[in-house]
Amino acid sequence: MKQPIGVIDSGVGGLTVAIELMRQLPKESIIYLGDTERCPYGPRPKEEVIQYTWEMVRFLQTKQIKMLVVACNTATAFTLDLLREELDIPVIGVIQPGARAAITHSRSYEIGVIGTEGTIGSKAYPSTLKHINEGINVYDLACPRFVPMVEKGLISGDLAYEIVHKSLLPLKKHKEMDTLILGCTHYPMIRELIQEVMGPRVIVISSGEETAREVSTILGYNSKLYTGDRKPKHSFYTTGDPEIFKKIASKWLKQNIDIVEKIELAEVQSMGY
Amino acid sequence: MKQPIGVIDSGVGGLTVAIELMRQLPKESIIYLGDTERCPYGPRPKEEVIQYTWEMVRFLQTKQIKMLVVACNTATAFTLDLLREELDIPVIGVIQPGARAAITHSRSYEIGVIGTEGTIGSKAYPSTLKHINEGINVYDLACPRFVPMVEKGLISGDLAYEIVHKSLLPLKKHKEMDTLILGCTHYPMIRELIQEVMGPRVIVISSGEETAREVSTILGYNSKLYTGDRKPKHSFYTTGDPEIFKKIASKWLKQNIDIVEKIELAEVQSMGY
Repeated sequence: MKQPIGVIDSGVGGLTVAIELMRQLPKESIIYLGDTERCPYGPRPKEEVIQYTWEMVRFLQTKQIKMLVVACNTATAFTLDLLREELDIPVIGVIQPGARAAITHSRSYEIGVIGTEGTIGSKAYPSTLKHINEGINVYDLACPRFVPMVEKGLISGDLAYEIVHKSLLPLKKHKEMDTLILGCTHYPMIRELIQEVMGPRVIVISSGEETAREVSTILGYNSKLYTGDRKPKHSFYTTGDPEIFKKIASKWLKQNIDIVEKIELAEVQSMGY
Repeated sequence: MKQPIGVIDSGVGGLTVAIELMRQLPKESIIYLGDTERCPYGPRPKEEVIQYTWEMVRFLQTKQIKMLVVACNTATAFTLDLLREELDIPVIGVIQPGARAAITHSRSYEIGVIGTEGTIGSKAYPSTLKHINEGINVYDLACPRFVPMVEKGLISGDLAYEIVHKSLLPLKKHKEMDTLILGCTHYPMIRELIQEVMGPRVIVISSGEETAREVSTILGYNSKLYTGDRKPKHSFYTTGDPEIFKKIASKWLKQNIDIVEKIELAEVQSMGY
């Protein structure tokens, strides 16, 4: 199936999921939409997040996507079930793949999760993990300094290390914790720092990597992988400043992103709540 | 959904998949059927493998399974598409999960695969890998000594190391190879030896571990995970000697398997070829 995979996010964070989709599924075309204008979704009320997410979905539906990836932890927590119920294409979020990967890799079943205050407050990760195995101990920690740090481009060096080290200190006392989920799509940009601080005994799980893996699983399972010879074509849309988006996307994707289109999202009557 | 997950294999090898299902999905009940009497499937003609697989599937259908796992590389190569077409429950094999995990973990895209002569001869792994990414280099190698070794219980010590070392020698010259798929369900029993021989730079992928992960993905995606409080109940069936099966299963699963039922498979009219 030549149709593209749609990826939505509140901003640029979901690009770490897009990077992994391009790497793991190099024949697939991606349409990315970041609602940069109204970012972040974390502090917004549930109804608003649902409303905004539907507006993004309605836009991507005009592009004939064959699958939808909700590359935003907050939107996943609030809309995944609704979207699955209403849409007739496969929909996957970023929370479940990271949780499942942690269960695969952990041997001590003492699992850490870091994320924004919104995601950690929602308890979506502990709930998903315990849904599968009640015996898992989850240590969750909000790291509010990480997103601003990454967005400023501060992703290496002494100061960055210092911030990561201080933030993760509360997790380091859990000696049996052998797996740490990066529960925010910005965090893969500082994965190496996080790994360095946590030490080699802790497996660091990137939800972008794992989400791309599950997109591959679901497309393969549904016989929807593209297997032809046409080159993939990626498109980027933002509700915010296309120049800023272009700069960040080019840097993160390590390739020149020439065209980023600014769009206005039409207000739709929200469904399903 | 309380119904069990059905697991079929030509013999005992698929128990390494069952172990991982029990570990990663501790609430789920498993029904395992090993066609030990007619094992191995590897050297048999395609039509015979399809016929035998259908006989196992028909038996498990009387047990109201909610999902079918084909825990045998040969049976996966020959029957997966047919089974998916004919059955109205999710069906997954052991080849695709290992291949997808290798793509997720590899950075050099130089991937090794080891398996029985049948599996390596079928080229199922290279074809699955290149289906997703044509740029991957695959180094495949048949290791005919590994299955007899594992079945004899020779899984550690100097002699075992010597056999593994000699067998894997042809792969060690590929310096850029960073990922190795265990393309046979027996091999996880000697995973540590294989890791030791290949060295720490090579990530060793167990198809059992990865298949269980994808069972979790597909059940989660289809809202079929069991989330109630009833304890799981596992059942084991074999077409061969139940005492030998019981001994191996108890050892591999590290728990006493009290009841293994010997069954005769009814000849069914084979479908779909």
